[in-house]
Amino acid sequence: MKQIPGGVTAAKGFEAAGVEAAIKYKNRKDMALVASTVPCKAAGTFTTNVVKAAPVLWDKAIVENSDFVQAVVVNSGVANACTGKQGIDCCETEAKCAGELLGIPAEAVLVASTGVIGMQLPVDRITAGIKKLVEAKADTLEAGLDAAKAIMTTDTIHKEIAVEVEIGGKTVTLGGMCKGSGMIHPNMCTMLGFITTDVNISKELLQKALSADVVDSFNMISVDGDTSTNDTLLILANGLAGNAEITEEGADYDTFCEALHFITTYLAKKMAGDGEGATALFECKIVGAASKEDARILAKSVICSSLTKAAIFGHDANWGRILCALGYSGAKFDPENVDLYFQSESGRIHIFGNGVACDYSEEEATRILSDPEVTAFVDMHMGDAEAVAWGCDLSYDYVKINADYRS
Amino acid sequence: MKQIPGGVTAAKGFEAAGVEAAIKYKNRKDMALVASTVPCKAAGTFTTNVVKAAPVLWDKAIVENSDFVQAVVVNSGVANACTGKQGIDCCETEAKCAGELLGIPAEAVLVASTGVIGMQLPVDRITAGIKKLVEAKADTLEAGLDAAKAIMTTDTIHKEIAVEVEIGGKTVTLGGMCKGSGMIHPNMCTMLGFITTDVNISKELLQKALSADVVDSFNMISVDGDTSTNDTLLILANGLAGNAEITEEGADYDTFCEALHFITTYLAKKMAGDGEGATALFECKIVGAASKEDARILAKSVICSSLTKAAIFGHDANWGRILCALGYSGAKFDPENVDLYFQSESGRIHIFGNGVACDYSEEEATRILSDPEVTAFVDMHMGDAEAVAWGCDLSYDYVKINADYRS
Repeated sequence: MKQIPGGVTAAKGFEAAGVEAAIKYKNRKDMALVASTVPCKAAGTFTTNVVKAAPVLWDKAIVENSDFVQAVVVNSGVANACTGKQGIDCCETEAKCAGELLGIPAEAVLVASTGVIGMQLPVDRITAGIKKLVEAKADTLEAGLDAAKAIMTTDTIHKEIAVEVEIGGKTVTLGGMCKGSGMIHPNMCTMLGFITTDVNISKELLQKALSADVVDSFNMISVDGDTSTNDTLLILANGLAGNAEITEEGADYDTFCEALHFITTYLAKKMAGDGEGATALFECKIVGAASKEDARILAKSVICSSLTKAAIFGHDANWGRILCALGYSGAKFDPENVDLYFQSESGRIHIFGNGVACDYSEEEATRILSDPEVTAFVDMHMGDAEAVAWGCDLSYDYVKINADYRS
Repeated sequence: MKQIPGGVTAAKGFEAAGVEAAIKYKNRKDMALVASTVPCKAAGTFTTNVVKAAPVLWDKAIVENSDFVQAVVVNSGVANACTGKQGIDCCETEAKCAGELLGIPAEAVLVASTGVIGMQLPVDRITAGIKKLVEAKADTLEAGLDAAKAIMTTDTIHKEIAVEVEIGGKTVTLGGMCKGSGMIHPNMCTMLGFITTDVNISKELLQKALSADVVDSFNMISVDGDTSTNDTLLILANGLAGNAEITEEGADYDTFCEALHFITTYLAKKMAGDGEGATALFECKIVGAASKEDARILAKSVICSSLTKAAIFGHDANWGRILCALGYSGAKFDPENVDLYFQSESGRIHIFGNGVACDYSEEEATRILSDPEVTAFVDMHMGDAEAVAWGCDLSYDYVKINADYRS
């Protein structure tokens, strides 16, 4: 596997665009298009929130029922959630408009929105934006970058990545982009993530690979514990790599899954580290857990703890909060038998063992916790299961950003 | 039922004290004693956290196995959690010391601690503090107030209350105090709460009343979602009111439960409103839910949402976050059929209905959300079940307080 430049336009046959459509933001790109020159198999995972945004309902139906998909239209600024029938109608208008301009059926167009809940999308500006997107679309890295920037809301950096792998003697490329900074606690997938690939794979296996992957990638991150109404992760596979179609599990499928996991984990970590107001990526690695499920629950409980997150922001080795978060996670364990370490680029330090604090240097701990990527490493000494979760610290800026996000 | 002045010394036969013992804080009271002149029945509810502080383990054993209890010793500043065998030994030392000075068995002494996790208690200062407490104890309201102040950590106000009810022709008094501001997400009880009463009641019914009560009082509040290692709620009943012993459910038991619920709800709300950094008490009232359990889950999900809490801090009617929090709560419902109102002293406003935003005035909403007590009132239109949960807004000061709490 080799990382290569670019994002959603890296794979053969994929075009993208990002344009200014003034949906809510001024003077910045706020609509994106991803399209394939040929029909794609599509798979998706969506929010488990009972309150599902209109685009989530639209996309779920398409992914489950359509034979193929060929384009995705995305806007930032307005989420088109809690918008009733008018919201659903808007999705249909978007898909029809894009379908006509691209010469494909409306049922081959997915839509996604992110931003404020409860506002209706400005239909005229949306359709005008789609026209600009179709005119601007290109298969260049720049076009992919434009798209990755257009889907940002409170994100401070765009997030994209691409890799190449060899499958069946052919070079297969996967590229992805995502956005997400607040209201991030995916419980099926992330805020908005889009992966394109030229692999040739059956629709069934494409969905299987994606569904299996999110459990240890996007579902293991949290910024604030709020599971969005709009969480959507889509993958489009157009088959142009020319490999023999992957129709069953085996070496080819495994190679594809490995590349997919590299993409999803990269994007998930980028999202966690760019959490609203974040100054650091905060990772929790659990080893020695009794089961994989326990390992996941323990890791996620730690990175979700507001008190722990605030301590990380303060570079304060307040490890008791980590023990506390492990304790209320729901997993059973013996606190006397847990080893806790803090680690980063600057080093690794044993903090807690045998039920009490180790004799560590607070200065050294503070130095480790001052790095931009900090890990709490916990050995439960109960079995072989491992898991990693990613979050961020809790800062003044998180409050600032969210106390008046709408204005 | 009549509210009367005072707290834990309001009921007959109860004494209290609060003194400076320099456990961690300087120049403030940080140890408290509550003691009865005669033996008491005791009941308690404790944290569900797997990581239980030493005093929790000590108290659980006493409440479950001792015939009677007569005193509680509390310190703030150091939690005596994650302290191994040394921590348990310290509880025993405390109980023995207090027992000797008070002339009661060590097994009649409960202990409680709150503060930083992981530090050992300074045993010499603890025993010196106990001596001062026993010398200072009195049955006055001032002594009760001293105790309520001594158990505070990041609390900005002390919390105490007392009521009188008539049971079996006798005046029965209940008084209580509690502390709690951060790491508040009780899952059996609160941080630390102590209730005294002179009612004559069987130990079995005392525990039953307390266990049933916390489900709708202390367990319905949250400041930050972190369930503490030290959560402890204790009630001591010394029988000095002289009523015929309550040994079965009925009118007398109901009267007692009603008074108990008044005390617990008052203290729970005070705790939520005094959450770390809070500028407002944020209440969520759910009506029309399909079941009581659903109502509780929905209410608690809303007051726990970081994004909603930040919006309340900003006086921003970002109601989409409330819909979102209802949606990921785990309870099933039809978003098209929910009515949401904001209400406060300043008025009431219909925000969301029929699946879309109502035509409300943002100015009026902001005025309502600027009050010190704000309610989100939600009608699910599915049944008759109701629940109320209490939390607070999320402010810069929460981050400030917790980014470097230990220093």
